[in-house]
Amino acid sequence: MVYQSPVGARDLLPLDVAQKRWIEKRLQQVFHQWGYHRIITSTLERLDTLMAGGAIERSTVIQLIDTEDELLGLRPEVTASIARAAIMHLNDASYPRRLYYNANVFRRSQRGVHGRQQEFYQAGVELLCGAGVLADAEILLLLGECLRSCGIGTCHLVLGEAGLTRSLLNDFPPHLRETVRTAIAHLDRTTLETLPLEPQLRERALQLFDLRGLPADVLQKVSQLSLDPAQQEAVNNLKTLVDLLQDFHARIPNPDLQIILDLSLIQTFDYYTGIVFEVVSGSEARVLGQGGRYDQLLGTYHPQSKTYPGIGFCLNIEDLHYTLLNSDRLPQHLPVSDCIVAAQTPQATAAAFAYAHQLRSSQPEIRVEVELSPDRSAEEVRAIARRRQIAQIIWVNAQGETQTEQME
Amino acid sequence: MVYQSPVGARDLLPLDVAQKRWIEKRLQQVFHQWGYHRIITSTLERLDTLMAGGAIERSTVIQLIDTEDELLGLRPEVTASIARAAIMHLNDASYPRRLYYNANVFRRSQRGVHGRQQEFYQAGVELLCGAGVLADAEILLLLGECLRSCGIGTCHLVLGEAGLTRSLLNDFPPHLRETVRTAIAHLDRTTLETLPLEPQLRERALQLFDLRGLPADVLQKVSQLSLDPAQQEAVNNLKTLVDLLQDFHARIPNPDLQIILDLSLIQTFDYYTGIVFEVVSGSEARVLGQGGRYDQLLGTYHPQSKTYPGIGFCLNIEDLHYTLLNSDRLPQHLPVSDCIVAAQTPQATAAAFAYAHQLRSSQPEIRVEVELSPDRSAEEVRAIARRRQIAQIIWVNAQGETQTEQME
Repeated sequence: MVYQSPVGARDLLPLDVAQKRWIEKRLQQVFHQWGYHRIITSTLERLDTLMAGGAIERSTVIQLIDTEDELLGLRPEVTASIARAAIMHLNDASYPRRLYYNANVFRRSQRGVHGRQQEFYQAGVELLCGAGVLADAEILLLLGECLRSCGIGTCHLVLGEAGLTRSLLNDFPPHLRETVRTAIAHLDRTTLETLPLEPQLRERALQLFDLRGLPADVLQKVSQLSLDPAQQEAVNNLKTLVDLLQDFHARIPNPDLQIILDLSLIQTFDYYTGIVFEVVSGSEARVLGQGGRYDQLLGTYHPQSKTYPGIGFCLNIEDLHYTLLNSDRLPQHLPVSDCIVAAQTPQATAAAFAYAHQLRSSQPEIRVEVELSPDRSAEEVRAIARRRQIAQIIWVNAQGETQTEQME
Repeated sequence: MVYQSPVGARDLLPLDVAQKRWIEKRLQQVFHQWGYHRIITSTLERLDTLMAGGAIERSTVIQLIDTEDELLGLRPEVTASIARAAIMHLNDASYPRRLYYNANVFRRSQRGVHGRQQEFYQAGVELLCGAGVLADAEILLLLGECLRSCGIGTCHLVLGEAGLTRSLLNDFPPHLRETVRTAIAHLDRTTLETLPLEPQLRERALQLFDLRGLPADVLQKVSQLSLDPAQQEAVNNLKTLVDLLQDFHARIPNPDLQIILDLSLIQTFDYYTGIVFEVVSGSEARVLGQGGRYDQLLGTYHPQSKTYPGIGFCLNIEDLHYTLLNSDRLPQHLPVSDCIVAAQTPQATAAAFAYAHQLRSSQPEIRVEVELSPDRSAEEVRAIARRRQIAQIIWVNAQGETQTEQME
């Protein structure tokens, strides 16, 4: 059969939509409370915009055919588009811009892997023109509040520092850097012990391997490394940030959120320059969201390469949805219509529509269906109402007089 | 510069988004009140799904490259996807299914025409498994209510009958049919008078030319043509429908909506079998929405070609937005944050975030920003608050004590 949905796509039926919207509405309320405003950028962008100066690999992007004078693709994430839009429209960088989005993104499914999803829903924020530890703290606290508002339960906030990690890896020969990083990220101590490294570098690799865990422990370990001034500053900022978060949580406890420092953490998209983070659900080790600071990204889109600081995160709606699916928080049923309005005779049809109109005009939240089959008997209408748990049938005659029948 | 938005795309900045959402929320409330539930289908579909059995031309569809074993495209409209989804998921056709969508669609811009938009936003409904005049009436009344709820003002509802029009054109030689239809649709009487037609057919063409105007006049004229039984039945249904709408409007007046019959009306997408319609704004002659009955479309997606009746419409959000832009109904300003919470000293930062948290916890609708620049002087914070019309600054010290400063 050719008439199926494409490989990796799925339809969201009304109950799925109601659950997705439940999540999105909670997130939006939090975004609004924190002073964020929604922006919508084009789903289609020039390929070079989407690649964000090389930070995003071309192979990730789903491209369009036959678009003549420009190569176009579907956005694999929204941050690059918002950075591009900010540079086009921002005309005053003297105070932070708080923006959020609620959008679909597209990624090419792996070759040979069937059933992979290609379209994903994300909600996220970008805080532009806000540098420093306080902006970092706002984003992490906002992320925690988003998770709390959905009732996600136990999560780990895994926090790294992309600039520091990149810089610490620079000690390694270029052809081994990626191997070292991957081995660290995958908890693969054996590789580090067998790589052709000088003793001093092997020692350094094993030190980096241990740079994850409770913040106090990791900060203690990293402070024992010999660091250059820029690295030292990054560590100091990380310490200030962690202290600030802990001070906040001493005032407003959030026992569901455990902070872990992990200096091997690097994100898929490589435009991050400062803190990077992901939030992982406790039960399933599912990545619910991720983000970081990107202080060079906006400059990529500026005609004179003038840049502005930026930091943001996105939450993966499908992963939130999956995590919440077995909780009792999501709506479990669609709202049922409050009544069926049915004409008693064919001559009463306009009167039935008019009565339904009056009901809807007087009660904004009411859901009223009009019976549309003139051939259906009263008993058949009752059977449908019962099956669908609709509590009332209102019969209307040609004079507009009504008779309400309560269903048991 | 390569870093622009693609040709034909535009960013919706926060005020644009607020206006778009104002429209969409009103439409959604109406859809809910009428018992419709939202469905979300994939943005990407197989090309043959999108072409709806040939009703939609391949050249309309933006296709993706390199999708291996299936040809994929971006939906140019949503009805075909919902028909496909309904066939995959519908397991009980004994009562009408009321579905709505709020989605983006994509159409290839005309070759050589720059600046053409490629992505459009639509909100619409599909009433599946509902045949007959009452379902037609529900859809037209719902369309009218959507326009009323947005305060669109004077509109023409132009109503045709695709099956009847197609059938009346069948009298003409196949190679002239499209010319005759186009001439009628474009009010081009001269072409009809000069086409190489036999006198009887020319007479018929000129009769069809006149089949538009006030419903009573058009129905009177069409009843004078010699019609076969199927044509006669379509005319009878049209008359019943028009009578029903007029009876309704006698009870619930809607002076903004004028009904026009136009038997030359055929929609771009060729899957319609019964009534077709479009709604045109009075002021700009802008097409705000369109739709029709498609009783064969679902069968296109069924393995055994079993079909179900369907009717729906979509509203073009950009056109509604444009039409409302000069009214005072749309929001004219973004909501301003209620206050800035600022730490009095660097030691008070966590206390400031904590106080902001308390404000947000106690007032769901409040918008609170935290001041993020520790280097900014109190006077600078005041200047920003004044410029942005934020009414309060709340200063917090390290003990969590607050001091509220009202801005003039």
